[in-house]
Amino acid sequence: MPVKDSETAVELAPTELLVCTTCRMGQEIPEGGVRPGARLMSALEDMDWPEGVTVKPVECLSNCDEGCSVVLRGGGARWTYVYGRLTPDMAGVVHDGATRYHATDTGLVPWRERPEHFRKNCIARIPPLELPE
Amino acid sequence: MPVKDSETAVELAPTELLVCTTCRMGQEIPEGGVRPGARLMSALEDMDWPEGVTVKPVECLSNCDEGCSVVLRGGGARWTYVYGRLTPDMAGVVHDGATRYHATDTGLVPWRERPEHFRKNCIARIPPLELPE
Repeated sequence: MPVKDSETAVELAPTELLVCTTCRMGQEIPEGGVRPGARLMSALEDMDWPEGVTVKPVECLSNCDEGCSVVLRGGGARWTYVYGRLTPDMAGVVHDGATRYHATDTGLVPWRERPEHFRKNCIARIPPLELPE
Repeated sequence: MPVKDSETAVELAPTELLVCTTCRMGQEIPEGGVRPGARLMSALEDMDWPEGVTVKPVECLSNCDEGCSVVLRGGGARWTYVYGRLTPDMAGVVHDGATRYHATDTGLVPWRERPEHFRKNCIARIPPLELPE
């Protein structure tokens, strides 16, 4: 697979980072309180992102027992990943992992290049839509 | 949302049931032995399926600590679901859940109509590709 350089990077499919904003991390949240998932989302929204990466809030990824969760997906040729056991202060880790994901055609970031948290806290991955026959 | 009857059911988007065939369920499998995931796949392949449902083997959904796993997805308007903690003898449960999923536009089967195992063992769900803005 050819290495992407800055000139060809624009050919990459858009990446969506979906952030579960309803996550309570098992905590009781007082009325009007900000949920951990919403705090993570807020931190991610404030960051600079590579062109082609969009951060979107979503309601409940049904991974409620495993802390804050995000999904990375993008284009028919990429694997989709669900990562969990995140906390609101981990926006930097998510940014790193999402940026590396976006730099690939397939979503498959080499193991050693993944943030350590992503290596240990992949909840599930889902094959590309364009599944080889 | 209009109720689908048999005349309009053909309008439903195709559904893919992806079955992790590499699952060992944490067991040591002797060389040449059949893995639990492959046994589940084999049982599912032998079943009659509604038109529009395709059963496909996939390699590793990265949910290895949670028993055999399947993914249900289909079309840009449906949620994608990952179910885990399955055993090779649970093809009937998967068939029931997948059939009910396929009968929906959105992938959202009412809670009480989901097989009990699906209610308790949803590993994650991922929003439709056509995410509302």
